[in-house]
Amino acid sequence: MAAKIPLDLDAAADEIAFMRTTVGASGASGVVVGLSGGVDSSLVVVLCVRAIGAQKVLGLIMPTAFTPESDLDDARELASSLGVRTREIRIDPIAEAFAKTLGIEHEAMSQRIPVANILARIRMVFLYYYANLNNLLVVGTGDRSEDLIGYFTKYGDGGADLLPISHLYKTQVRALAERLGVPHRIAYKPSSPQLYPGHKATDEIPTDYDKLDIVEACLFDQHMPIEKAAHVAGVPLGVVTEVARRYESTRHKREYPAMVRCW
Amino acid sequence: MAAKIPLDLDAAADEIAFMRTTVGASGASGVVVGLSGGVDSSLVVVLCVRAIGAQKVLGLIMPTAFTPESDLDDARELASSLGVRTREIRIDPIAEAFAKTLGIEHEAMSQRIPVANILARIRMVFLYYYANLNNLLVVGTGDRSEDLIGYFTKYGDGGADLLPISHLYKTQVRALAERLGVPHRIAYKPSSPQLYPGHKATDEIPTDYDKLDIVEACLFDQHMPIEKAAHVAGVPLGVVTEVARRYESTRHKREYPAMVRCW
Repeated sequence: MAAKIPLDLDAAADEIAFMRTTVGASGASGVVVGLSGGVDSSLVVVLCVRAIGAQKVLGLIMPTAFTPESDLDDARELASSLGVRTREIRIDPIAEAFAKTLGIEHEAMSQRIPVANILARIRMVFLYYYANLNNLLVVGTGDRSEDLIGYFTKYGDGGADLLPISHLYKTQVRALAERLGVPHRIAYKPSSPQLYPGHKATDEIPTDYDKLDIVEACLFDQHMPIEKAAHVAGVPLGVVTEVARRYESTRHKREYPAMVRCW
Repeated sequence: MAAKIPLDLDAAADEIAFMRTTVGASGASGVVVGLSGGVDSSLVVVLCVRAIGAQKVLGLIMPTAFTPESDLDDARELASSLGVRTREIRIDPIAEAFAKTLGIEHEAMSQRIPVANILARIRMVFLYYYANLNNLLVVGTGDRSEDLIGYFTKYGDGGADLLPISHLYKTQVRALAERLGVPHRIAYKPSSPQLYPGHKATDEIPTDYDKLDIVEACLFDQHMPIEKAAHVAGVPLGVVTEVARRYESTRHKREYPAMVRCW
């Protein structure tokens, strides 16, 4: 499956130079990244290794009880093949401590998003703990497809020091990952944040990534009117208006908090 | 004690208008703010009430075992006098769950900053849980004195949706708080993040706030050379260079994460 959006695969040089320069300028000793076994974090860890060397990269694998074992194996095997040190941390005891304090019933649908956000934020806390302890930067793994519609947890997976693939659409991430040696089964694995059992990204985004990427590129890179974007992407008008609506309503997630000075 | 930096006390009109407009434009039903009994959060909750009315404001009081009882009483009494609903949440069980998973010994000095950051981030998680559940914005309480030297936890107390007093120096915060009816003992209480037993801000900032504010205003508002700033503020040169150093090294805490696009 080829990316429909042009991508200079050699452009990984930009991402690598960005990481090397950002880490160097910060005075940090290296980076820490959360590894889920998905394509985004897999591409990011490959870029980290190319930028600063495996010995300066720490991978945290932070499953819950409902994380698929195959994702764990993918994360472990990729790190191992790259020579990246990892630590594994089960986050359920922390999630249970929050749930107990809050009196949350895990099964309640009304709690699904608040609880999913708690899980994403627990992972951020662990990443920064190891960053603090070892003078590391936290590398975020968000991509542009998700970023533009705010499909991430503010101060959770969105909480990082640098975002080396936030300018790449998901289809570009998959193509670049495969090009850089990430196994095909990871590069083309269906996307899932795994924040509740059976969680699939395609249940929560307006259309599948192949089309979403085209819609977003039409709207936000080429600034097409909604009707034209729908025509080019081959999707109903409602999909495009939904993407545009999410972009607007999640603007605050892509900016520093609002301040009087900037008002 | 008068603020040395000019402050139009009627300028609270700006902060109130900012909050009212930001909350209104977001479509949120109200705001949630963490109340510590300190001057920053006390001024912020007063501004919230003036901006959108007490019935739309939720206060979270989130002590640890070493939070002074007098701070709790100050937070409770102020909220009560304003008619603001509060919830009290002991965060120790969550901190203990993190410590157990990480094998942290609380007494180890090397763990002091990493653990302090965990506490600040646990509070952020609770604030966003209630924000998610009730369609509220999270109001941050950071002031300009602390902001400019990065004296806050990234994605902890720094994790918020709006920052209504981040443009006011601590001396201005104290004066404005008292002017708006915050009791004198709170307005002029010695500053403390209370992130470990006996924690005092004055042990961790380069000089006391009266002088720090002048140094910062000289450096960052009036762009004076370091020697002149030291002379005007009446502090040793080393204090000014330390403030300048912290400003530079914490720049990343006052910006959205680094991205290739913005590089």
